[in-house]
Amino acid sequence: MAFSEVENTRSSLRDFQGLKVLAIKLWERQVVEVAKKAKKIGKEDPRTIIHSLKVAVALTLVSLFYYYQPLYDNFGVNAIWAVLTVVVVFEFSVGATLGKGFNRMLATLLAGALAIGGHHFATLFGERGEPILISTFVFIAAAITTFVRFFPLMKARYDYGLIIFILTFSLVSVSAYRDDGVVDIARSRLSTIIIGSCIAIFVCIFIFPVWIGEDLHNLVAANMEKLGNSLQGFEGEYFQIAGNEQSREYDRSFLHMYKNVLTTKSNEENMANLARWEPCHGPFRFRHPWGQYIKVGTLNRQCAYKIEALNSFLYSEMQTPVEIKIKIQESCTNICSECDKALQELAAAIKKMVRSSSANPHIAASKSVAESLKSLLRTELTGEDDVDLIEKVPVAAVALLLIDIVKCIENIEEAVHELASLASFKIIDSIEEQPNLQRRGTVVVQPLEEQSHHAITVNESTTPENGNCLATRVQV
Amino acid sequence: MAFSEVENTRSSLRDFQGLKVLAIKLWERQVVEVAKKAKKIGKEDPRTIIHSLKVAVALTLVSLFYYYQPLYDNFGVNAIWAVLTVVVVFEFSVGATLGKGFNRMLATLLAGALAIGGHHFATLFGERGEPILISTFVFIAAAITTFVRFFPLMKARYDYGLIIFILTFSLVSVSAYRDDGVVDIARSRLSTIIIGSCIAIFVCIFIFPVWIGEDLHNLVAANMEKLGNSLQGFEGEYFQIAGNEQSREYDRSFLHMYKNVLTTKSNEENMANLARWEPCHGPFRFRHPWGQYIKVGTLNRQCAYKIEALNSFLYSEMQTPVEIKIKIQESCTNICSECDKALQELAAAIKKMVRSSSANPHIAASKSVAESLKSLLRTELTGEDDVDLIEKVPVAAVALLLIDIVKCIENIEEAVHELASLASFKIIDSIEEQPNLQRRGTVVVQPLEEQSHHAITVNESTTPENGNCLATRVQV
Repeated sequence: MAFSEVENTRSSLRDFQGLKVLAIKLWERQVVEVAKKAKKIGKEDPRTIIHSLKVAVALTLVSLFYYYQPLYDNFGVNAIWAVLTVVVVFEFSVGATLGKGFNRMLATLLAGALAIGGHHFATLFGERGEPILISTFVFIAAAITTFVRFFPLMKARYDYGLIIFILTFSLVSVSAYRDDGVVDIARSRLSTIIIGSCIAIFVCIFIFPVWIGEDLHNLVAANMEKLGNSLQGFEGEYFQIAGNEQSREYDRSFLHMYKNVLTTKSNEENMANLARWEPCHGPFRFRHPWGQYIKVGTLNRQCAYKIEALNSFLYSEMQTPVEIKIKIQESCTNICSECDKALQELAAAIKKMVRSSSANPHIAASKSVAESLKSLLRTELTGEDDVDLIEKVPVAAVALLLIDIVKCIENIEEAVHELASLASFKIIDSIEEQPNLQRRGTVVVQPLEEQSHHAITVNESTTPENGNCLATRVQV
Repeated sequence: MAFSEVENTRSSLRDFQGLKVLAIKLWERQVVEVAKKAKKIGKEDPRTIIHSLKVAVALTLVSLFYYYQPLYDNFGVNAIWAVLTVVVVFEFSVGATLGKGFNRMLATLLAGALAIGGHHFATLFGERGEPILISTFVFIAAAITTFVRFFPLMKARYDYGLIIFILTFSLVSVSAYRDDGVVDIARSRLSTIIIGSCIAIFVCIFIFPVWIGEDLHNLVAANMEKLGNSLQGFEGEYFQIAGNEQSREYDRSFLHMYKNVLTTKSNEENMANLARWEPCHGPFRFRHPWGQYIKVGTLNRQCAYKIEALNSFLYSEMQTPVEIKIKIQESCTNICSECDKALQELAAAIKKMVRSSSANPHIAASKSVAESLKSLLRTELTGEDDVDLIEKVPVAAVALLLIDIVKCIENIEEAVHELASLASFKIIDSIEEQPNLQRRGTVVVQPLEEQSHHAITVNESTTPENGNCLATRVQV
C-alpha cells in the first residue's frame, strides 16, 4: 500500500515534471517568437528603438521633480501632471508631439481661465446655488465641445485640444468647489503641463528627431518608384520572353508593389495634418506646401488604380495569342520603360528636392510611343488573319490602358512641378547636375531606341515646354 | 481749431463705428456659417448630438463625487481621476469605449501591482539607492512598453492600455518615493479609474448605444449598394440613350458612389478591431465573425477598382461609334442590371441578417449574359464593316471588364454566404419570406427579359446550387 502510494506520487511527479518541461518549452518558443518579431521591427525601422529610449529619457527627466527637493517644494503633488503629460504627449514624430503639446497647453490655458470665471460667477449664488451652476456649466461645456469634435477640420487638427478642454474645465470647476484656491489649482495644472509638454517636445526634437513631414515627402516619392517598378514588373510578366526566366523572377517581386499605393489615402492625409505642426527643419520650411503632397498622392493612387486594371488582364482566362501580342510588344515595352523612367526621375527629383526637367524627355518619349501605339493598333491589329477579334481585345485593352497611364504620369509630373515651385526646390540647369538614378537592370529596350531617347534628353532638358512638339518628331 | 478737433473726433468715431459694424457683420456671418455646419452634421447623423449629451451626462454623474459629501470623504482629491477617466474613456461607439475602459482598468491594475513590487524591492537598498533603482525601473518599463506599442497586433488592440501602463507605473513609482502609502496610492487610483470607466461604459451602453459592429455591418452592406448603383450609373452614362435625359441626370448621382468604397480599408479594419470589444447585442453575438466583414470589404474594394477602370473608358478620347456600341448594349445593360440586382439582394440579405439565395438567380443570369456577351463579341464585332478595330476596342474592353465584374460579384456572394454561415444568419426557405427590395426606377431592361429573369428567380430560389445549369439555359 505504502509502496503503491509512493509509486503514485512518483508518477504524478513525473507527470507534473513532464508538464513543466512542456510548459517551459512552449514558453521558450513563445519568447523566441516575440524576440524574433521585435528584432524584425527594430531592423526594419531602427527609429522605433530610438523612440522607445527617448520616451524613457523624457520620463526619467520629468521624474526629477519628485527626487529633487527644491523642485518638489515648488510643485508638490501636482508634479504628477508633468509626468502624465510627458507620457501622453510624447509621440513618434515631432509633428504629432508638437501638435499634442500645443493643443494640450492652449486648451489647458483656455479651459482654466474659463473655469475660474465660471467659479467666480457661481459663488455669487451662495452655497446652494454654486454646485448647481457649476454642474450646469460643466454639462454645457462638455456637450458643446464634444459636438465640436465632429467638425471635420476640428477633428483633424484640434481633436486632442478639445478633449483636454473638457478635461481641464471639469477638473478645475469641480476641484474649485472643494478648494477655494481655484486660481492656484488652475495655475499649477497649467505650469506642470507646460513643463511636461516642453520636456517631451525638447527630447523629441533634439534627440534624433523623426520629422513626419520628411516621412510624407519620402513616402510620396517611394510610392512613385513603386508604381514605376510595378509597370516594369507588369511588362515583364505580360510579355514573357522565353529563356528570360531569371529576369522574370526578379520582376515578379516588383509586380505587386503598386498595391501599397492603393490604400495610402488616410495615412497621407494624417501625415500632412501632423506635418503642419513642424517647424522649419533641414530643407523644409515652416509653411511647406504639405497639401500639395496630398494632391500628388491622389494622382499616384489614380495611376495605381490603372495598374490594378492592367494586372487584371495578366491572369484573366481570355488571353491574346503570343503572335498578336508580339506585334505591339515593343511599343508597350517602351511605354512601360519610359513611364517607369519618368516616375523614377520624378521620385528622385522629389527626394533630392530639385526642380529638374529630367523626367520630361521620358514623358515626351512615352507620349510619342503612345501615339505610335495608337496607329499601330489601327494597322497591325486590323490585319487579315485567322485570329478572332475577341482574342485581340485583351492586348488592345492593355495598350489603351497603357496610353491612359501615360496621361496619368503627365498629371503626376505637373503636380510634382507645382510642388517644386510651391516649395521652391532648387533649380537645376546643367545636365551634369541632374540626378543620376541607379537603374535596375531589368529594362529591355532596343539599343537604337535607347540612343534616340537619350538624344531627346539632351535636346529637351533646357526647353521642357517644347517637349510635346519635339517628341512627336521621334516616332519610335 | 476746436471745431476741427471735434470734427476729427467725430469722423474717427464714425470710422470706428463703421469698423465695429463691419466686424459685427463678419462675426455674424461666421456664426451663421458655423451654425449651418453644425446643423448639417447634426442632421446627417443625429447620434452626434446624442453622444455630446451623453458625455455631458456622464461627466455630471461623476462630478457628484465632489458635491456629495459621503462620496468625497471616501476618495477625496483622488476623485479627480474618475473625472479624468470619464472624459478620456468615453468614445462615440460602445466598442471603442469598452476597449479603452478595459485597457485602462487592466493596465492600471497591472502597472500598480508591478510598481508596488518595485517600490518594496527598491526600499531594500536604502535612501540613496531607492531613487536610482526606481528611476531605472521606470526607464526600463517605459522603453520596453513603448517598443511593444510598435507590434502591429498590440497597436491595433492594446495601444491605449500600453500607454496607461507606462503612465500608472511611473506615477505610482515616483509618488511612492515621496509618500510611503504606495499601496493606498495604487488602490485609490485603481478604484477611481474603475468607477470612472464604469460610469462611462454604463452611460455609453444604456443610453442610446452606438454599436460600431452594427455600423461596420451596415457600412459593408451600404458599400455593396453603392457598387450596384455605380454599375447602373455607368451603364446609363456609357450607353446614353437619346431622349432619356431625365433618367441620365438621375443616374449621374449614382455614377461616382463607388469612389467612397475605394478608400475604406483602414476605416473597416479599425471598426472590426473595435467591434471585437462589444458584447452580445441585438442579433450580434459576442464572437460575431467581424474578420469576415474585412474579407467582404476587400472584395468590395476589388470590385470598386474594376468600376474605376470602367469609368476611365467613359470620358476617354477614344470612343466607339454608337452603331458598334449598340450591338452589345443589350448584353452590357443586362450584366449591369443583373449585377446591380445581385449586389442589392446581397446587401439586403446582410442588412436583414438572413441567409438568402435571392442573389443567386441574378448572379446566374449575369454569368449567362456574360457567356453570351463573349460569343457576341466574337460574332458581332468581327463583322466586316468600315469601322477600325481600334474603335471597337474600347467597347470590347468595357465588355471584358463587365465580364470580370461578374466574377468579382460571384466572389462577393461567396464571401457573403460564408459570413452568413459563420454568423448563423437566419435561413429563409420560402419565396414569400425573401427580402423584397425597393427598386429604384432607373433600370432599363427589356420587359421580356425582366420576365424571364423573374421566372428564374422563382424556379431557382429553392435550388440555389443548380443556379448555373439553369441559368445557362436562358440565353439573353
